[in-house]
Amino acid sequence: MKVEIINIGDELLIGQVVNTNASWLADQLTLNGFSVGRILTVSDNIDDILSAFREGFLRSDILLVSGGLGPTSDDLTREALCRFFSCNMRSDEDSLETIKKIFGRRNWPLTAINIKQAEVPEKCKAVSNPIGTSPGMWFEENGKILVAMPGVPFEMKQMVSEIIIPRLKEKFGQEKIVYRNILTHGLGESSLAERIKDWETDLPPQITLAYLPQPGIVRLRIMTKGNDEEEMLAMINKQIEKLKSIIPELIFGYDQDTMESIIGELLLNKNAYLSTAESCTGGYISHLITSVPGSSRYFKGSIVSYDNNVKIQQLGVRQDDIINYGAVSKQVVTQMAENVRKELNTDYSIAISGIAGPDGGTTEKPVGTTWIAVATPENTIVKHFIFGDNRERNIRRAALTALNMLRMELLS
Amino acid sequence: MKVEIINIGDELLIGQVVNTNASWLADQLTLNGFSVGRILTVSDNIDDILSAFREGFLRSDILLVSGGLGPTSDDLTREALCRFFSCNMRSDEDSLETIKKIFGRRNWPLTAINIKQAEVPEKCKAVSNPIGTSPGMWFEENGKILVAMPGVPFEMKQMVSEIIIPRLKEKFGQEKIVYRNILTHGLGESSLAERIKDWETDLPPQITLAYLPQPGIVRLRIMTKGNDEEEMLAMINKQIEKLKSIIPELIFGYDQDTMESIIGELLLNKNAYLSTAESCTGGYISHLITSVPGSSRYFKGSIVSYDNNVKIQQLGVRQDDIINYGAVSKQVVTQMAENVRKELNTDYSIAISGIAGPDGGTTEKPVGTTWIAVATPENTIVKHFIFGDNRERNIRRAALTALNMLRMELLS
Repeated sequence: MKVEIINIGDELLIGQVVNTNASWLADQLTLNGFSVGRILTVSDNIDDILSAFREGFLRSDILLVSGGLGPTSDDLTREALCRFFSCNMRSDEDSLETIKKIFGRRNWPLTAINIKQAEVPEKCKAVSNPIGTSPGMWFEENGKILVAMPGVPFEMKQMVSEIIIPRLKEKFGQEKIVYRNILTHGLGESSLAERIKDWETDLPPQITLAYLPQPGIVRLRIMTKGNDEEEMLAMINKQIEKLKSIIPELIFGYDQDTMESIIGELLLNKNAYLSTAESCTGGYISHLITSVPGSSRYFKGSIVSYDNNVKIQQLGVRQDDIINYGAVSKQVVTQMAENVRKELNTDYSIAISGIAGPDGGTTEKPVGTTWIAVATPENTIVKHFIFGDNRERNIRRAALTALNMLRMELLS
Repeated sequence: MKVEIINIGDELLIGQVVNTNASWLADQLTLNGFSVGRILTVSDNIDDILSAFREGFLRSDILLVSGGLGPTSDDLTREALCRFFSCNMRSDEDSLETIKKIFGRRNWPLTAINIKQAEVPEKCKAVSNPIGTSPGMWFEENGKILVAMPGVPFEMKQMVSEIIIPRLKEKFGQEKIVYRNILTHGLGESSLAERIKDWETDLPPQITLAYLPQPGIVRLRIMTKGNDEEEMLAMINKQIEKLKSIIPELIFGYDQDTMESIIGELLLNKNAYLSTAESCTGGYISHLITSVPGSSRYFKGSIVSYDNNVKIQQLGVRQDDIINYGAVSKQVVTQMAENVRKELNTDYSIAISGIAGPDGGTTEKPVGTTWIAVATPENTIVKHFIFGDNRERNIRRAALTALNMLRMELLS
């Protein structure tokens, strides 16, 4: 069953937006047994959209179209769909209800333009979009399917995961795909590949492995196709067990886990509380931890001490140590961790002080220099790292490294 | 002069890699006056590649092709090019020299497969690639141009910037493109469109407008084509001035600005310092502010008071007020803002307390309920909001709304 992805939007053709929708959608389709034959981006222009539809149907059975469903004059997908399927618009009651609900909740006035958002071509079934004002549109004609979806990433993603892929799977008896993700931290892609190359060579031929790197994390995806889901999962899990014995210290989670959700579970199991004292990460660790729903059950708070006076006054760091050793030093980060743990009355704490860049580096302490401390009820572990020269990635890597240090302590 | 970008590679069609090559290339072409009509991704399959070339030339004058030039068996672009242009391969001397140099420098042995990398179709001119083993390939036939480039991002980018775009500009006297972005906060896409519809209707026909929404922000892009860059920019700026008089309170920045970079500039101009006290945003505001290089010149720190005891002990919030009014209340958020401003000795402060969800809501205070306070040297402004029911977006919207409240105070 060949699928083609069509993205509509001038912003993609002038390079203003990276097409992450397409890669997410391609990934989800692949994982659900559908093969993506092409990804095409066209402009907000009726003729271009129409020829994309026409050509797409010559090659593929399913066209998934995103973008151009907004309320403004440059959104032309609705009009193109009416022309392509030779039909008029109708107002969709359910979609209008959703729009009214969204606007009511926010106390926004409902305008004519909003009401128009509930209009869909007569020949389609509307696909519900509970979190946005534009419904999806599902067309079937001559055994082929076209689904138009909003271009707003979170609306598109929810619609695809909850409605479109389940409905496509129901219609087409696809081979089943089973996969699991293994989350690692501590080695880059090529070093990790080197470490596990014997295991990789020995994988059964029906298993495929993919390396999916992102700053600070390499995700390994093990995938197989077949009919017996239970058997496939058992085969994958057997390989995971083998891998676990090779790199136990690098694996921190599986599948939907995140470093911060794993930390949360470990703290909950211990009935323990966490606090943080952050300098160069500027609140990012605290943000990661509190992005997990229910994190108030184990996280008390953070003191972001960007300024040295905050380190001294709110965290009780000795001024002399800042003068003698610098704010980015073992002495200072140790006091930050131990004192925030006491001050906020928690069992564990994390402290970070570093030079995120691009400025502030010296020969002795180049950009990327970072001290991390984890204080526990028993002791304080302090480590020194030199990350790279990119501010954003340094902040991300420092935060993940700190959370992983805490994870090791929580496990020990 | 219509350009089409063709990316070749299975890794893009299974969603393993995000196509950042295409957006970079589209951006560069746009900024140099070339209009990208389509971006197409096809698989490592000869027939798919050939039909992409064939169809591309029906529509466009220039095809820029990347990927599939590597040394392994799944790299088929060379073969497809020979078939498409009906010619054989030849070895390119300059390219072979480059390959020998690269291998010599690294002390790697030169194998048959590496030597084969210097082969190009007879009908093309090789395009030098000093940092990689695969040359580019420039074809001209019947007034149309096809350039094949390596898929490795830094090789492709260097080739495009140094050779391909300059050569294309030399060949074609292009129309120039000028565009600017206007960043707004405070209204959703459709309400904003409603607000500015008269202005939009009155835009000169040679100007195009696009709405680019993301959580909490709607970006407006005004674009025009022509020959006189100065004149075009003046025309765009005139429209921006008109828009400014219609929605002065909604526009917070332009082009590469972010809400946090604008806040930084305003604080620097006033020589003022900022602190934050965050509950539901959990450090996210602090993270945004410190993601700007040099933010230590105006940001002192944050107290993330996720737990009520931290609000009481570190921020001096009256326990009685938490009991009587709840942690998510005007009384509590006001004290958080005023006290963190005093404690951290700053001129301005932001405080937030809210229910990010998914749990914790009540009939009286549903999920999304958020109080935001901004304390200034003169007074404290407190506002109440009800955002949606998605935790991640609530955190993002609360942070942007708070930063915007601070911005208004800094401007007043």
